[in-house]
Amino acid sequence: MTATKRQLHLNVGINTTGYLANAWRYRTGDRHDINNPDYYRRLTELAHKGLFDAVFFSDHPALMTDPNGRPFHTIDPLILCTVLAAQVPDIGFVATMSSTYNSPYNLARRTQSADIISGGRMIINIVSSFNPNVAANFGAEPLPPRSERYAKASEFLDVAKRLWSSWDPAREGDIPENRFWDAASAQAIDHSGDYFTVQGPLNVPVGPQGHPVIAQAGTSEGGIDLAARHGEIIYCNILSRPAGQAFGRKVRDRAIALGRDPSAIRIVPGLVAILGKNREEALRKHELFSGTGSEDGLIARFIKDNGINPDGFDPDAVLDPERFIPDPNRIQAVGMGLGLSDLLSHEQLTARQAVRRSEGHHRLVLGTPEEVADAIIDLWADGTVDGYTLQPPRAPDDIEEFVTNVIPILQDRGVYRTAYEEKTMRERYGLPYPFNRFG
Amino acid sequence: MTATKRQLHLNVGINTTGYLANAWRYRTGDRHDINNPDYYRRLTELAHKGLFDAVFFSDHPALMTDPNGRPFHTIDPLILCTVLAAQVPDIGFVATMSSTYNSPYNLARRTQSADIISGGRMIINIVSSFNPNVAANFGAEPLPPRSERYAKASEFLDVAKRLWSSWDPAREGDIPENRFWDAASAQAIDHSGDYFTVQGPLNVPVGPQGHPVIAQAGTSEGGIDLAARHGEIIYCNILSRPAGQAFGRKVRDRAIALGRDPSAIRIVPGLVAILGKNREEALRKHELFSGTGSEDGLIARFIKDNGINPDGFDPDAVLDPERFIPDPNRIQAVGMGLGLSDLLSHEQLTARQAVRRSEGHHRLVLGTPEEVADAIIDLWADGTVDGYTLQPPRAPDDIEEFVTNVIPILQDRGVYRTAYEEKTMRERYGLPYPFNRFG
Repeated sequence: MTATKRQLHLNVGINTTGYLANAWRYRTGDRHDINNPDYYRRLTELAHKGLFDAVFFSDHPALMTDPNGRPFHTIDPLILCTVLAAQVPDIGFVATMSSTYNSPYNLARRTQSADIISGGRMIINIVSSFNPNVAANFGAEPLPPRSERYAKASEFLDVAKRLWSSWDPAREGDIPENRFWDAASAQAIDHSGDYFTVQGPLNVPVGPQGHPVIAQAGTSEGGIDLAARHGEIIYCNILSRPAGQAFGRKVRDRAIALGRDPSAIRIVPGLVAILGKNREEALRKHELFSGTGSEDGLIARFIKDNGINPDGFDPDAVLDPERFIPDPNRIQAVGMGLGLSDLLSHEQLTARQAVRRSEGHHRLVLGTPEEVADAIIDLWADGTVDGYTLQPPRAPDDIEEFVTNVIPILQDRGVYRTAYEEKTMRERYGLPYPFNRFG
Repeated sequence: MTATKRQLHLNVGINTTGYLANAWRYRTGDRHDINNPDYYRRLTELAHKGLFDAVFFSDHPALMTDPNGRPFHTIDPLILCTVLAAQVPDIGFVATMSSTYNSPYNLARRTQSADIISGGRMIINIVSSFNPNVAANFGAEPLPPRSERYAKASEFLDVAKRLWSSWDPAREGDIPENRFWDAASAQAIDHSGDYFTVQGPLNVPVGPQGHPVIAQAGTSEGGIDLAARHGEIIYCNILSRPAGQAFGRKVRDRAIALGRDPSAIRIVPGLVAILGKNREEALRKHELFSGTGSEDGLIARFIKDNGINPDGFDPDAVLDPERFIPDPNRIQAVGMGLGLSDLLSHEQLTARQAVRRSEGHHRLVLGTPEEVADAIIDLWADGTVDGYTLQPPRAPDDIEEFVTNVIPILQDRGVYRTAYEEKTMRERYGLPYPFNRFG
């Protein structure tokens, strides 16, 4: 134990009705919630009561029109985070945005503005868009190939970092009486690269965090490279200890190879927790919230999702991990699919067992509050993860249950805060203040 | 007088230290204000006390680095308006944004989000960027020619309007028990035009105003065309009654020619008001706030700004209006320059007189609170204008003086509200709810 005690980090996703498309049938509230700013305020207040590090908004600039589900990404995340920051103190905000379909200048300006307004509580989750429905909202061109999207995302963040630090705060002190400012404190960046040409300077000075904390969500090879270069908080899907340790090593080794301090990276994967008075109750809730209705239903979905021939499939036979390696050329988030193949390559599991290990691609933990707390602490205690991003099946219900029943246990075990102490997200996550070219 | 009494509309600009670059020397506050969200909250509260229709943020996505002035456009206007809407009730927000350097999908989503969050208090001022320093922040390409920028802006708004209304609110009522929503309530727009290809639908439903009110700021030919097509609130520079009447006729005639109801347009030009115990005091303040120091200084600046040969120039000779028609090909806001030539073509003025008629391109009114109130009512009473957008030389000082001294006179005269009554900006401005393709 060092002087500063290592702490469990917990974020919570609060998109619309919760993480699972079908769980809305069992939630408190009505369909107007998803478009109601007061609803998001209530969710954020609930998260604040639970002393979460931050609330997390995933995003996707296109409407997903599953008639059986619900709209998932509606109100613009940064706009929503900005208003929530005015309404709820202390807690941080993770806003997802696309590096494929934004310009670095506008995005750097907006996010620095939101960071200033929130007093340094902004984390931005930069994603490289992978969906043709998104591309179709931004022109006639198809999606660029994956490698190009990641190269563009990396240059995007290089430019954003230079813009965020294009004002020299040190010059603020020494200004003649007859001048309002030292105009030379803001310097052009004159960037000219493969994807972007940006003169600068930004018209917003350096913010309370130097720049917003950068989260990164990819776990494909390109995603790991981007995480190693730029990610400060890594959101990913880690389904087991060996898979998590391998992932963490890979990201940190790559960071070292790029000359970056690997201690400036926090890994907070997604987590779906379903609580019950006992494990059996949690299993039944899982079957309901997933929309499959039963264990057989979960297995049938597993067969379908993985393109398995159902004829003669034995749900109690050990699965072959080779069978589950995702095709890197398919048009979707490759990283998400890797979770299952990584799990199976480290543990011998049957389909019946595997369906209880993940939900919506993320680690699933089922059981009593004590069992869930144990499972969370388990991978945190040895540093496999730095914490989790809770993805509640239902909002507000599963956030409320977690805050009421699990948080006190985590506090009793001494791994989780009992009050907010830090002001900025960099302080809360123990991340360094970023390099500024002015020194 | 009809059943609904016609009302004077007043907005107030609250960029950084106020409208005039040099007036900061005479303002209350320090240089940290411009980057401090609490400062903008205080200005908005002051505007709320004065019952202004809305606060106005001009914008420019580039840093203007005049060492003698101050940064003018810093924090992103929409981010700032979003947080201010959470902090200050009733008042509206005009956020300026570029149609040249934004994508319609992102902008439509962000602004609809902000409109929902503010309960229908958003006005968006869509401008076609004219500055090469802006272009240099968004790529290596030079600015497109003016005609192309306006054609692009018009198509931009066509697309945005279709996105804003891509959900059918009527389908909200009739949803089966086992469904969260009617996914068919959101329809693709499948736009494919000269500048944009956008599939849609938007992932945000229709907002409280149908869509945010659209303000338009250009007064060049292209700007008038855009205003006639799309503008609901026109921000412009009108320096005299005949010029204002000619402008209003032109915009409304063009709207009619385009098949649009001209009664759905409000004209609220900029206005710089400088108050004094008497006119002499106001004149001296004008000389100080303009940074010219004296009447001779104002005349010298006039000579310089208009490229006049100072040798033998007689400041008391009547000016030739032909001399002041701006070159439509120069790289700046042509509309602004037209104000002066329009003024001179309708009134015989000397340079000594002309310098007291506008400041920062806008109508200047100087004198006691009664004189200023009279001048405001004068052009409003016969419908030349629907109101004004006050551009206070100094913030907060000139807003405070106006609220304390001029607002009560306008209220006494029965032309200005004594309390907020309407919720949305459409209601406040008496603008129609926009057309929705679902009827």
